Amino acid sequence: MNNYSNFDLKAYVEFRRSMVDKMLEDYLPESSSDYEKVLVSAMRYSLFAGGKRLRPILCIAGAEAVGGKAEDVLFLACGIEMIHTYSLIHDDLPAMDNDELRRGVPTSHIMFGEAIAILAGDGLLTEAFKIFSDPKYVGKHDLQRILRVINYISEASGYRGMVGGQAMDIMADFAQPDLNLVEYIHTHKTGELITASVVSGAMLIGADELYLSKLKAYGQAIGLAFQIWDDILDIEGDPLEMGKQPGSDQRQKKATYPLVIGIQKAKEKAYELVETAIKSLDIFGSEATPLRAIAKYITERRK
Amino acid sequence: MNNYSNFDLKAYVEFRRSMVDKMLEDYLPESSSDYEKVLVSAMRYSLFAGGKRLRPILCIAGAEAVGGKAEDVLFLACGIEMIHTYSLIHDDLPAMDNDELRRGVPTSHIMFGEAIAILAGDGLLTEAFKIFSDPKYVGKHDLQRILRVINYISEASGYRGMVGGQAMDIMADFAQPDLNLVEYIHTHKTGELITASVVSGAMLIGADELYLSKLKAYGQAIGLAFQIWDDILDIEGDPLEMGKQPGSDQRQKKATYPLVIGIQKAKEKAYELVETAIKSLDIFGSEATPLRAIAKYITERRK
Repeated sequence: MNNYSNFDLKAYVEFRRSMVDKMLEDYLPESSSDYEKVLVSAMRYSLFAGGKRLRPILCIAGAEAVGGKAEDVLFLACGIEMIHTYSLIHDDLPAMDNDELRRGVPTSHIMFGEAIAILAGDGLLTEAFKIFSDPKYVGKHDLQRILRVINYISEASGYRGMVGGQAMDIMADFAQPDLNLVEYIHTHKTGELITASVVSGAMLIGADELYLSKLKAYGQAIGLAFQIWDDILDIEGDPLEMGKQPGSDQRQKKATYPLVIGIQKAKEKAYELVETAIKSLDIFGSEATPLRAIAKYITERRK
Repeated sequence: MNNYSNFDLKAYVEFRRSMVDKMLEDYLPESSSDYEKVLVSAMRYSLFAGGKRLRPILCIAGAEAVGGKAEDVLFLACGIEMIHTYSLIHDDLPAMDNDELRRGVPTSHIMFGEAIAILAGDGLLTEAFKIFSDPKYVGKHDLQRILRVINYISEASGYRGMVGGQAMDIMADFAQPDLNLVEYIHTHKTGELITASVVSGAMLIGADELYLSKLKAYGQAIGLAFQIWDDILDIEGDPLEMGKQPGSDQRQKKATYPLVIGIQKAKEKAYELVETAIKSLDIFGSEATPLRAIAKYITERRK
């Protein structure tokens, strides 16, 4: 089952990314209404600011791993990307991480002002649930499954998940970071939505609980590995490749793995997690090749 | 059908308000987790800050008007109140209306700081969609209707509805307000969610499209009347009853009806809208008595 070293991840990702981009473009075009124009521009600005589309691709790959098709879960993948984008806009706000650059371009509040940035985030979060329940897309699915997916994603994004992780990330600035806290922040702020991405695609397709639990283990492992690697890149990364200055976590006294256990141990931990993720896919066949390749890529990326 | 002058609105509202409060309390109790405690406290602080519960009561009254029971739509009513509460938290932020008091108590960002206030709002919005899709509550309903309600409420709350209205309200500070703009802001910022409240309850019960369209007309009329009356109270209201200083709209150069057409014409417009609202309920029987009484109350209230 380790036949993925020859797998063309780049081509896989690019094809699915273009599907996601196209649906997002169709779903949220520029508004011709004078009254909506600025807000929609702000929502689009962040939605099309060069994101990797990791979460929607994981959602599609999760569905494919259990025999589904990208087309079937594309609307779900796009809604998840809207939730991710809203969280970035709000995280960057002056009252939060106060970041002026993301992916090399000015953040939303720098471009549109704080008020519109807050509202663009609110609008994107709301729009996610609109696309999740859009009759155009849900019609061909089992409605009970759709509702289960909505419930699961809202749990993963809310105070018990992503928003909860962000709240502790903010408050931890003032505390002595310990490993439990750092792990809570990472598994919640980043991990929950990454896990929900990969699980929800398969859930919508109707995968067995056993397969869902394996995808969940996979998601939790890569979610944490992804965040640890981000923290490592923040220290060692090339500012040109990253689109921001390294060291910003340290300056902001963010609770990170490298800070608490040292950079070498953090790297080992990330590699270990990638192994765990790939191992949890053992019961899957070659349909899970993309998920395996994505896991491996996490600790290879330089931005 | 005008038998509602003897109707005990106070008793009606208080009973339903206590149902809403009880379910909200059950759904979002204080968290015993060290990591969730502050965020959940902030979410609860605003959720239980003495709101009138107008929207959830309208949702229940809309369901009752077409033969439904309060219990059946209570989860929907509670989710709508969460959306309303999140919008107030974000509206009050320094980058938005910069209000330090609401209903006589400090606003969320004064109590918890800006970052937690933003996240408490995000958490409440997310939780609304979690309760809308909660298997405990949706099980007894037609799932297609549930999804239609989720889709409708997210449209009404998003950039085409409430968030769009708030964005123009912020931007209109810098413009010469004209009546079209003022009407856009009011119908969107306040009107859309009020309309969605009364319509969604009946939609979930399975009301005919004709009845839904009449409830929509009712909701649009009282939504606008409600906002105009708020603006009038902002000028003429008693600060003790209001829980805030009157005149804040004028100081902030907010676009309001009284500002654009004068206070007398604004009052006439509000009375007219209440009449329109009540008239649109003509095809309903005595089950719509609460809705009629609520409409009448809008231009009678002093806070």
